[in-house]
Amino acid sequence: MTEDINTQTDTKHSDNENQSPDTELTHVNADGDAQMVDVGAKPDTNRRASARGEIELTQTTVDAVRDNEIGKGDVLATARIGAIQAVKHTWETIPMCHQIPITNVDTVFDLHETAVELRVTVETTGKTGCEMEALEGVTTGLNVIWDMVKAAEKDDAGQYPKTAITNIEVVNKQKQTET
Amino acid sequence: MTEDINTQTDTKHSDNENQSPDTELTHVNADGDAQMVDVGAKPDTNRRASARGEIELTQTTVDAVRDNEIGKGDVLATARIGAIQAVKHTWETIPMCHQIPITNVDTVFDLHETAVELRVTVETTGKTGCEMEALEGVTTGLNVIWDMVKAAEKDDAGQYPKTAITNIEVVNKQKQTET
Amino acid sequence: MTEDINTQTDTKHSDNENQSPDTELTHVNADGDAQMVDVGAKPDTNRRASARGEIELTQTTVDAVRDNEIGKGDVLATARIGAIQAVKHTWETIPMCHQIPITNVDTVFDLHETAVELRVTVETTGKTGCEMEALEGVTTGLNVIWDMVKAAEKDDAGQYPKTAITNIEVVNKQKQTET
Amino acid sequence: MTEDINTQTDTKHSDNENQSPDTELTHVNADGDAQMVDVGAKPDTNRRASARGEIELTQTTVDAVRDNEIGKGDVLATARIGAIQAVKHTWETIPMCHQIPITNVDTVFDLHETAVELRVTVETTGKTGCEMEALEGVTTGLNVIWDMVKAAEKDDAGQYPKTAITNIEVVNKQKQTET
Amino acid sequence: MTEDINTQTDTKHSDNENQSPDTELTHVNADGDAQMVDVGAKPDTNRRASARGEIELTQTTVDAVRDNEIGKGDVLATARIGAIQAVKHTWETIPMCHQIPITNVDTVFDLHETAVELRVTVETTGKTGCEMEALEGVTTGLNVIWDMVKAAEKDDAGQYPKTAITNIEVVNKQKQTET
Amino acid sequence: MTEDINTQTDTKHSDNENQSPDTELTHVNADGDAQMVDVGAKPDTNRRASARGEIELTQTTVDAVRDNEIGKGDVLATARIGAIQAVKHTWETIPMCHQIPITNVDTVFDLHETAVELRVTVETTGKTGCEMEALEGVTTGLNVIWDMVKAAEKDDAGQYPKTAITNIEVVNKQKQTET
Repeated sequence: MTEDINTQTDTKHSDNENQSPDTELTHVNADGDAQMVDVGAKPDTNRRASARGEIELTQTTVDAVRDNEIGKGDVLATARIGAIQAVKHTWETIPMCHQIPITNVDTVFDLHETAVELRVTVETTGKTGCEMEALEGVTTGLNVIWDMVKAAEKDDAGQYPKTAITNIEVVNKQKQTET
Repeated sequence: MTEDINTQTDTKHSDNENQSPDTELTHVNADGDAQMVDVGAKPDTNRRASARGEIELTQTTVDAVRDNEIGKGDVLATARIGAIQAVKHTWETIPMCHQIPITNVDTVFDLHETAVELRVTVETTGKTGCEMEALEGVTTGLNVIWDMVKAAEKDDAGQYPKTAITNIEVVNKQKQTET
Repeated sequence: MTEDINTQTDTKHSDNENQSPDTELTHVNADGDAQMVDVGAKPDTNRRASARGEIELTQTTVDAVRDNEIGKGDVLATARIGAIQAVKHTWETIPMCHQIPITNVDTVFDLHETAVELRVTVETTGKTGCEMEALEGVTTGLNVIWDMVKAAEKDDAGQYPKTAITNIEVVNKQKQTET
Repeated sequence: MTEDINTQTDTKHSDNENQSPDTELTHVNADGDAQMVDVGAKPDTNRRASARGEIELTQTTVDAVRDNEIGKGDVLATARIGAIQAVKHTWETIPMCHQIPITNVDTVFDLHETAVELRVTVETTGKTGCEMEALEGVTTGLNVIWDMVKAAEKDDAGQYPKTAITNIEVVNKQKQTET
Repeated sequence: MTEDINTQTDTKHSDNENQSPDTELTHVNADGDAQMVDVGAKPDTNRRASARGEIELTQTTVDAVRDNEIGKGDVLATARIGAIQAVKHTWETIPMCHQIPITNVDTVFDLHETAVELRVTVETTGKTGCEMEALEGVTTGLNVIWDMVKAAEKDDAGQYPKTAITNIEVVNKQKQTET
Repeated sequence: MTEDINTQTDTKHSDNENQSPDTELTHVNADGDAQMVDVGAKPDTNRRASARGEIELTQTTVDAVRDNEIGKGDVLATARIGAIQAVKHTWETIPMCHQIPITNVDTVFDLHETAVELRVTVETTGKTGCEMEALEGVTTGLNVIWDMVKAAEKDDAGQYPKTAITNIEVVNKQKQTET
């Protein structure tokens, strides 16, 4: 077999890291089909991403979380584990994501008067960034909190008039400069 | 086998559907340990839950989604499938959730000027509600959109100053009246 | 909770079992978006589906499988387990599939002169048919055989000029008559 | 990367893919037990594999796929995502497969008069080949198409007399020569 | 569809609950091939199983667990969640297991002088028993404890001379008497 | 591999909770929260771990396993595959585990008069040890044996008075000395 893999050509237009203009990206996927981005020519690099978000709860519920009196048990420990597992599963949850080696996950909860804030920081040594992993950690961790406080947040009609997950952002995305 | 399970006793204090006062819930899990709720005595019932949320994007990106010109391809079709799969996987993503039979998932996207809104409605015939399934569908679907538009949303420093997932709520939760 | 779900209305147009004309189906999904079919109003029924297919191999390889001399070990036992697991995972492998209770899986291998034939029969008590489960069992079981005989089937260039998986069909699909 | 793809070299250096005599393989697994192949001493190498196959459908169904009028919605987008996810899950679907880093997946559908053809190309930087990943992508993608067109392909007895998945082959397997 | 499934015939020999003599079981699987047991004709019944086991640790480690001072954090909360998730995943971890609806999981840890004991009770409303689910909960929960205390249990040579998981038993298996 | 395995050196370099005294470890996780250990700065190294355990069975059952006459079929082939799959899934089964590249899994069963012994050896080229993977392989493999011999081990009351999984240990943990 004499075919070459010309990864030069393969990867020229397929860097989903850099801030390439839409035109270039559009050229790469001219047919508009969903497809993974070729990361084969990218170097393994230390990367880190932090995301954050919060769940709005009644003050009574936040107090209960603080006092760890919520019926379902240790709310934050469960949310922490749910967040870490979600980070590790991002490659299958987000269809176009690659599986990258996760080297570290850090989860920090802050309890405010009527909200619980979660910040998840993910580190990888892989070929592509890990902001999606951090976002999956935040949204899943906040969903777990919701699940753990359902009985406390529901009104008499079984609805959640005051509960909301909001302000989910990527706080920071870093890549070790290649020297 | 002559031993008999007195489910009457088993389930007296374990309805996680009703709006039981914290005290009762606290009594059930007096030690504060995380544990699943016993749903063994609950009847199978038709239940439905709708959740919604939105991702804030630049107008250029929303236009690109609308025109299906985003580099990674069919953004909404991929987000729809990601949302449906997340609904089906909620029992493993949310540690204390039971696995319930999902009979229907409906996903609706609305494109606004600088945001994409997603509403996910889930139906089940199971023993417990499906609002967590709907929330997982919404947060995952919106995360998939973020993943699909990464290159378009990143600034020159590779950050996401304008992208956010916000206002995630349970719109409605219903249970067929038992007649 | 006083809201009532009128499943009559919900499910009028959503039977994906019957041989409804395309027009009706098209009407249900007029926007052409991928979505699950609502099976909430369908009764639980005993259903069975059988699928079959074959992998073409060199006579030497089939003999080796027969003599259980393939380097990687017990080819058919591994393929059988791979097939059964694939049946159970169909709900996550095929995006629009529902998860249905699998009550029985039967796998039969027939060794021919230059092919191994696999027939998988699946039974469920669920609300929708299980032919996709049977097909997933057949294609995965045959892929496992391919994996187990790779070294025997490759030519000097590391290619597979004679190996092929072919003639995958749904042999039979049954539903217990409701009486 | 401008190195030649020399599968001659490939097969020489890839001890669990090479065409070693049964005696050698037998020696490796003298007891005939299923076991993974030790790839610990293999170098990380750029590898690529392409597989293809087709699903035979009625002309009416192929036209409907072409016109994207199939009831269940966007057939090809769903099949594409199902294929990509199957590629990433091969390490758990095929019991003896190793998990390797997938760097790229390319899916191409060709619509013929009475068939849809799917070609999946997978690239990895791992220690072993990715033809099983390509095959899993093809068989799953074709199964997803079957699932999406079920209502259109079924006859009045609910059977599939004309539907078949066939001619699944590994088109090409390459490895970058080590220089 | 006029074909009728005679489940009477189907299931005559396939009860894996009762204490059938080997001869009958052997007859069912005369070819000795691994296969699932047909549970299609079994009624849905309330079932419960309890399993228990213990991990032997140094007294220092048990004290650290008690004082929640282990470096990796909340040992028991993590083990509890690991156990519950393992219960829910038994259908894919144990190849021949059916997926059954888990209605309740109860986990109890007892700290002894040089051991941590775990008892897991599982309840289902399904067609087959749940002792495998209880065993998976116990073995996984104890493995999680091991993972959490690795640094405390390792000796200077990085070995675990005193750590062991032992005495894993099914304490009790019940089925609601059908009246 | 001709490098000598020096477990002495191993401990000096391979403690993935760093070789800090408990006090320092406590300091690292002063808040006692569960979290992954940062392995980002650790080198990729050849590592190996062996674990073992046994399941106590009646002599009749062991004989049946030996004669492969157990009703459910090939007990050891199924247990072997269950063990290998469990090794590969350890990163999701044990919440705080990292996903590491598994390069080899070796499973050895020994049949004693009233017990079946299983030894699982795992090799990785990753940044952290693989003893948890070996333990998961052993406990899952033994659980699969239990599942396969259920009908033979149950007494007339459907209980398991003589069945137990016991003496699960990490036999050996090694790391290639860095030269």
